[in-house]
Amino acid sequence: METVRGVAGKIQRLEVKGARNVAIAALQAVEDMAKKTKAKNRGAFLLELSNARQTLFASRPTEPLMRNALNWVLDSVDHCGKTKISELSGVVASCSCEFLRSLEESKEYIASVGAKRIRDGMTVFTHCHSSTVTYLLRKAKESGRTFEVICTETRPVFQGRITAREMVDLGVKTTLIVDSAARSFMKEADIVIVGADAITSEGNVVNKIGSSTIALLAHEARIPFYVVSELLKFDPATLRGEYEAIEQRSRDEVWQEAPEILAVKNPAFDVTRREFIQGIICEEGVIPPHLASEVVRRRYPWINHTRNLIR
Amino acid sequence: METVRGVAGKIQRLEVKGARNVAIAALQAVEDMAKKTKAKNRGAFLLELSNARQTLFASRPTEPLMRNALNWVLDSVDHCGKTKISELSGVVASCSCEFLRSLEESKEYIASVGAKRIRDGMTVFTHCHSSTVTYLLRKAKESGRTFEVICTETRPVFQGRITAREMVDLGVKTTLIVDSAARSFMKEADIVIVGADAITSEGNVVNKIGSSTIALLAHEARIPFYVVSELLKFDPATLRGEYEAIEQRSRDEVWQEAPEILAVKNPAFDVTRREFIQGIICEEGVIPPHLASEVVRRRYPWINHTRNLIR
Amino acid sequence: METVRGVAGKIQRLEVKGARNVAIAALQAVEDMAKKTKAKNRGAFLLELSNARQTLFASRPTEPLMRNALNWVLDSVDHCGKTKISELSGVVASCSCEFLRSLEESKEYIASVGAKRIRDGMTVFTHCHSSTVTYLLRKAKESGRTFEVICTETRPVFQGRITAREMVDLGVKTTLIVDSAARSFMKEADIVIVGADAITSEGNVVNKIGSSTIALLAHEARIPFYVVSELLKFDPATLRGEYEAIEQRSRDEVWQEAPEILAVKNPAFDVTRREFIQGIICEEGVIPPHLASEVVRRRYPWINHTRNLIR
Amino acid sequence: METVRGVAGKIQRLEVKGARNVAIAALQAVEDMAKKTKAKNRGAFLLELSNARQTLFASRPTEPLMRNALNWVLDSVDHCGKTKISELSGVVASCSCEFLRSLEESKEYIASVGAKRIRDGMTVFTHCHSSTVTYLLRKAKESGRTFEVICTETRPVFQGRITAREMVDLGVKTTLIVDSAARSFMKEADIVIVGADAITSEGNVVNKIGSSTIALLAHEARIPFYVVSELLKFDPATLRGEYEAIEQRSRDEVWQEAPEILAVKNPAFDVTRREFIQGIICEEGVIPPHLASEVVRRRYPWINHTRNLIR
Amino acid sequence: METVRGVAGKIQRLEVKGARNVAIAALQAVEDMAKKTKAKNRGAFLLELSNARQTLFASRPTEPLMRNALNWVLDSVDHCGKTKISELSGVVASCSCEFLRSLEESKEYIASVGAKRIRDGMTVFTHCHSSTVTYLLRKAKESGRTFEVICTETRPVFQGRITAREMVDLGVKTTLIVDSAARSFMKEADIVIVGADAITSEGNVVNKIGSSTIALLAHEARIPFYVVSELLKFDPATLRGEYEAIEQRSRDEVWQEAPEILAVKNPAFDVTRREFIQGIICEEGVIPPHLASEVVRRRYPWINHTRNLIR
Amino acid sequence: METVRGVAGKIQRLEVKGARNVAIAALQAVEDMAKKTKAKNRGAFLLELSNARQTLFASRPTEPLMRNALNWVLDSVDHCGKTKISELSGVVASCSCEFLRSLEESKEYIASVGAKRIRDGMTVFTHCHSSTVTYLLRKAKESGRTFEVICTETRPVFQGRITAREMVDLGVKTTLIVDSAARSFMKEADIVIVGADAITSEGNVVNKIGSSTIALLAHEARIPFYVVSELLKFDPATLRGEYEAIEQRSRDEVWQEAPEILAVKNPAFDVTRREFIQGIICEEGVIPPHLASEVVRRRYPWINHTRNLIR
Repeated sequence: METVRGVAGKIQRLEVKGARNVAIAALQAVEDMAKKTKAKNRGAFLLELSNARQTLFASRPTEPLMRNALNWVLDSVDHCGKTKISELSGVVASCSCEFLRSLEESKEYIASVGAKRIRDGMTVFTHCHSSTVTYLLRKAKESGRTFEVICTETRPVFQGRITAREMVDLGVKTTLIVDSAARSFMKEADIVIVGADAITSEGNVVNKIGSSTIALLAHEARIPFYVVSELLKFDPATLRGEYEAIEQRSRDEVWQEAPEILAVKNPAFDVTRREFIQGIICEEGVIPPHLASEVVRRRYPWINHTRNLIR
Repeated sequence: METVRGVAGKIQRLEVKGARNVAIAALQAVEDMAKKTKAKNRGAFLLELSNARQTLFASRPTEPLMRNALNWVLDSVDHCGKTKISELSGVVASCSCEFLRSLEESKEYIASVGAKRIRDGMTVFTHCHSSTVTYLLRKAKESGRTFEVICTETRPVFQGRITAREMVDLGVKTTLIVDSAARSFMKEADIVIVGADAITSEGNVVNKIGSSTIALLAHEARIPFYVVSELLKFDPATLRGEYEAIEQRSRDEVWQEAPEILAVKNPAFDVTRREFIQGIICEEGVIPPHLASEVVRRRYPWINHTRNLIR
Repeated sequence: METVRGVAGKIQRLEVKGARNVAIAALQAVEDMAKKTKAKNRGAFLLELSNARQTLFASRPTEPLMRNALNWVLDSVDHCGKTKISELSGVVASCSCEFLRSLEESKEYIASVGAKRIRDGMTVFTHCHSSTVTYLLRKAKESGRTFEVICTETRPVFQGRITAREMVDLGVKTTLIVDSAARSFMKEADIVIVGADAITSEGNVVNKIGSSTIALLAHEARIPFYVVSELLKFDPATLRGEYEAIEQRSRDEVWQEAPEILAVKNPAFDVTRREFIQGIICEEGVIPPHLASEVVRRRYPWINHTRNLIR
Repeated sequence: METVRGVAGKIQRLEVKGARNVAIAALQAVEDMAKKTKAKNRGAFLLELSNARQTLFASRPTEPLMRNALNWVLDSVDHCGKTKISELSGVVASCSCEFLRSLEESKEYIASVGAKRIRDGMTVFTHCHSSTVTYLLRKAKESGRTFEVICTETRPVFQGRITAREMVDLGVKTTLIVDSAARSFMKEADIVIVGADAITSEGNVVNKIGSSTIALLAHEARIPFYVVSELLKFDPATLRGEYEAIEQRSRDEVWQEAPEILAVKNPAFDVTRREFIQGIICEEGVIPPHLASEVVRRRYPWINHTRNLIR
Repeated sequence: METVRGVAGKIQRLEVKGARNVAIAALQAVEDMAKKTKAKNRGAFLLELSNARQTLFASRPTEPLMRNALNWVLDSVDHCGKTKISELSGVVASCSCEFLRSLEESKEYIASVGAKRIRDGMTVFTHCHSSTVTYLLRKAKESGRTFEVICTETRPVFQGRITAREMVDLGVKTTLIVDSAARSFMKEADIVIVGADAITSEGNVVNKIGSSTIALLAHEARIPFYVVSELLKFDPATLRGEYEAIEQRSRDEVWQEAPEILAVKNPAFDVTRREFIQGIICEEGVIPPHLASEVVRRRYPWINHTRNLIR
Repeated sequence: METVRGVAGKIQRLEVKGARNVAIAALQAVEDMAKKTKAKNRGAFLLELSNARQTLFASRPTEPLMRNALNWVLDSVDHCGKTKISELSGVVASCSCEFLRSLEESKEYIASVGAKRIRDGMTVFTHCHSSTVTYLLRKAKESGRTFEVICTETRPVFQGRITAREMVDLGVKTTLIVDSAARSFMKEADIVIVGADAITSEGNVVNKIGSSTIALLAHEARIPFYVVSELLKFDPATLRGEYEAIEQRSRDEVWQEAPEILAVKNPAFDVTRREFIQGIICEEGVIPPHLASEVVRRRYPWINHTRNLIR
């Protein structure tokens, strides 16, 4: 459990960040715990897993990918029909491994599909830093497409600079602008591509603060706006009526010397409505966001189960 | 001419900034030059004035208030019918003084008109720092209205922090957010009020980068968007077909350590189209932006003259 | 003063209603008072007039036509240069008479202009009851046009029934619907025409609750939406920043047996924004609403004066 | 058959009303008929059922819930493989019972999902009276949420007053307004929730007249608009190209003393297009309206069968 | 009168076409008639002029420029205070000459203003053929700007081919497309510029069929849409409530071999609403279309007079 | 192979045209080839089929119906488990036959569903010529509905004239207009119905150039816009990220005598976005375009397979 608690702490303190990295770290922590377990029987083992999950869930309010990953592994253990601890531990390891492999495959497929959307001579507008987006652009570049990139700096923590560096290192002509200049440069773009932190049952996408504004600006200028994301970021709780929680981060990220009496609000994400999203580029290809919940149900039928290992 | 050149330099280096301050400094420089002139006759005096104007105009691409101010003073001198240098110099001084007084009156009137738009309990959204806007809010506060303020930080040079400080000093409950969070907070606002750097003949408003996006967001959420501005910021060149120049500022304001190969673009302003502007609150009261050029023509008939002192 | 107070009471109790009728009654009360005055000198006479105006203004929050009428008469008296009471009283009478005549002319002109907008075979959609609108339709009918009318019942006090009766009496094929069926019938209309209670400096129109929704519905279906109104309903206070007051009427009009704990809100008017109004049909012809304040200033230069008879 | 005819009459005369009540009454009538049947063989029994269905279908033009209920029960009887009358009658009873239980479960689930959409401090706007909506609000209240309600009176038969009474009885701060004031109060709302009478294959929702206007107003002000409805209200005939019939009700509901020559039109419903609906809150959770037909097909595969018991 | 009748016939048969050419021909015909008049006195002369005007007006339903030209000349004659026929005839000649000179000046000014709107590297989209537009583009080209042009073929009579030829002759890279491809190419444009046949009091513009669609497409893609037109094309009748007549042309222009039973409709113009027009580039510079009627009234105060030479 | 090459040539030269005709010709060519094959074994036979497919695919860039047809037949052969050439050839024949029968059934079903959308008295607007649309209208006419049709001429090759002829021959009152008059006549329409050449995974529809503009115009005027199309026109490549290719046709179709230096561009199709499409009327009934890819996957699970007969 120590590893688990350690990893949860790191996630909490943002030492591990990015939906994918968080999911990987959480799976590895649980795998590690399972390997070293001292549980005497199936019940105890399941209880341990359940506690670990709870601890990891508590580390960050909104990490649907990590949640779906842990739920899938624990669900598999629960239904595997085995009782010996070593076998159960083996199931944890193999499931974890399978999940990560599937995630890797999705990433590859998404990049290859999305790269086809980049036509020669296009200017691609993006916001924040998404490893899926930059991997897609790398693929496009490698397949010989010529394109330019415009990226926002992405206040408050300037992740846009990471995107900018990756792009110039890749040899792509890149322009960086402040977030509020997005409208002035939208007319120069041919396509907007951003990542996602969560997908809701209504087909909306939760992503870095500012994304919904960029989507609106793209719509205003008739520029297609795409989201690249594994469908595993779908949050089944939204189907059951929950609002996707929007993490409120520290005021210090915005202004360290702010007068104390001044309220400084720092939401990490916002919600882009489905009508502004041309398509979600995912492991099923390019789909309208409206279809997300049904496609998830078809591909990941386990995702909507409410699970409770302790009965 | 030395003073004039000195002031022009200060304007260029942003040691003097803000449309109003720039106009005041330019008028005082010309007044000073006129006082100390060694010109022997009317022709020589007019030539000096004309050169001074040219130097000051060159200091910044887009300062319609300063341009209108100098044009008005020189026009008055040109038409005053006097010939003695001391008299002409007196005309410069009295016109300059009159212009500044009129500017002051406009500011007062705008604030008193605009303050009436702030109803008890309202939340006012603003962007960047405009002394006209904060003066208006001060008036509203002094007249007993209770309201809150949301302001953006306004990258790249964080003028929103100045607004925030002024507001909390005034005892107003204030929230500061990053620019790209504007859409997330728009629904909490009841009114948006911003300043202006220039008004065009089409009724559009040039203001700090990001303003046009905020106007669009206000429109999307059915929130009224007001511009407060003296009509003296009207740019008559736009009537003659010129585009209002958008100052492109240094990349260092955005990211000092940016990779050299990365293009960093930093336009200071953007254009908010008239259809997103509920009203311009000006020295003539609250008017639709569509009327700007006609109201200017009625109130400042001299503003559209093309002037050339040397004949 | 008794007559004045009596008339003010009647206005307050809605025994006199309709912008035009209210203005007429107020003018007649003042004229009557002037005729019977016992004032000994110009100062006393002006004081009486001023008090009368104050009393009448207080009778109803939003009656710009009545306000403009009284202001114009008193202004004329103030500037007529006469001092004898009988002469001053005569000015009141003649001004009052002139104002009413001008109002009558406007009504005729508006109807003749507006009638030309009714083409043979059109279906006209209207809301509430406006004597200017029904007079226009009568004119159109008399000039031989064939058209149909759709009118809403106009809750809470069913003024639409008055419109419906007038139309069927006129021999026009008429359909009455509940207010919330407006969208279902909008597609059958070719034009929407409504009246106005006030026009603001931004070019917005204050009219019976529901008008702004109908304007939006017309816009959604690409149906032109016209307002017919004398420009004398322009409220100069809006130019000075005031919001047009929206009268809040009794809950009993809506539901007499409502549970006491239930809030029943009953605003009489709403504000239709200029972008939903194709044109204002007024004594100057068909104009874009955006021009209202400038056209008023040209035609009624006295309307923006702040007047204070007591110096 | 007498009971069936009696119930059909009651439905016709609106003595039984509300989609759910109508479905329940119809099922009970059929169950009752089946219990007392004198049919000698399966064929005769099926003929009786078929006739009963026809009679009940004829009672009201648009009751997809009742239609789906009867179709499901009769379909089950047809395929149950039994031949003894008593057994067949038992199938009617058990199916009817199962349908009602499922309906009850849906209602519970919908309320629990929808209640999560009500955040503390929200103002909920609703139209007409929907028992599903008020049950949802009761759930939200019971789970400790604090919220206010704005409801329209809902002409012509004032069902909004029923909603208002239920809400104040529940201890919720409630405001009632006339229908045409919806736009004036929309800005005070945080969410709009209405019920449904039918769902079409295009994802549109048929509901009380006025709903589509409120949806448009919500969209204009960026307020989310939700429909709560069992998917069993889906009308499979729309998939086959039929328009959902809109019941035209009596003119007397609108104006009893209307001049005879006046056309008074009184459609009971209108159609809200899918693009104005954020989500349908149904027995499958919160879904985009676009998905309705596919989700129905998955959950109720029998719903699209064309059935004909007599072969 | 023969010349007049001859010219009217040519206009009718489209042997003279284009608003400007029609106006010039009409003025010359009247001037010619005045020169050769045999009228014995002022009354007779005015009657002749009046008849000539009537004949020319009848030649085409919608030629506001020609109408304004004739009205202005006749009005001037009527008010010149002269009585001798030779003097009156001289007034006709001098007024006609002045009008044409003023028209020429406007054309020059419009071109010089509009040329400034063409930035280096822009792609200009245009529709139909307008000599004012092509003159503007010539000016832009001559002043050293580099730009491309996209033009539609403009069915039914392919005026776009004239534009295309003029542009390639000018050395401008030009693309011609069918009218219904406008949306596919709009994203490649930076600005749309079209001419006008008439301007209405609401600020709408009447131009070649298809213009309003292109304006909508420009709006959809955030591309500015400009109209270049002399304000003398303002039709004062629209201020008085008249609809601008839309000429219905021959079916043969569309399809000569069309089955007789087929209705072939061929309106020559459509109406572009003011909200889709960024600005009218006219002899007063760049103005919002909303201002047209007021600017016309200021510059051409005679334009709204109703004139009747026979008293 | 000769037949195959011959047919491919005819398709290329547009001697065979229309998605349906192209598919039929291609299937027959393959069937013919299979019948006459000299292949000695299964491998050789499959290779022949594969080559034939490649040849036919190359004949036209965008023919998803033909592609899906050939893929389905070849896939069936590949999985039929037979080895004898005669049997394999029989599978080709029977599959081809089945596909055509299914296509015929779809056409019938689509027409019967779509005909129900035509209400008595409606005016139907259509663009270009689609045999599915005209068959639907024939069905509607035969079922006794009275309606009118407006159709565009559809430049450059005037297919609208074919539609117009078919309609007048059918006895339907029909109006033909030039393409750019669509907006002027949209208000007279009650419904727009067009065909499709391809459906993309985002739910967009590729159809004759101009369709997307008409969809926008319909949306602007609140007129429902329907697409009638077999889902077999779904292009699975779009799911994998490919853009639907837009055929660029000869400049001579537009203007044979165009100056050589003039670029004449002639794209055959454009893309209508899903938000402008009320519904797709297909073999599954009326569905929202958003659902296309999921419904295709359910009904034609083989459509997304990537197939390669040579292993």
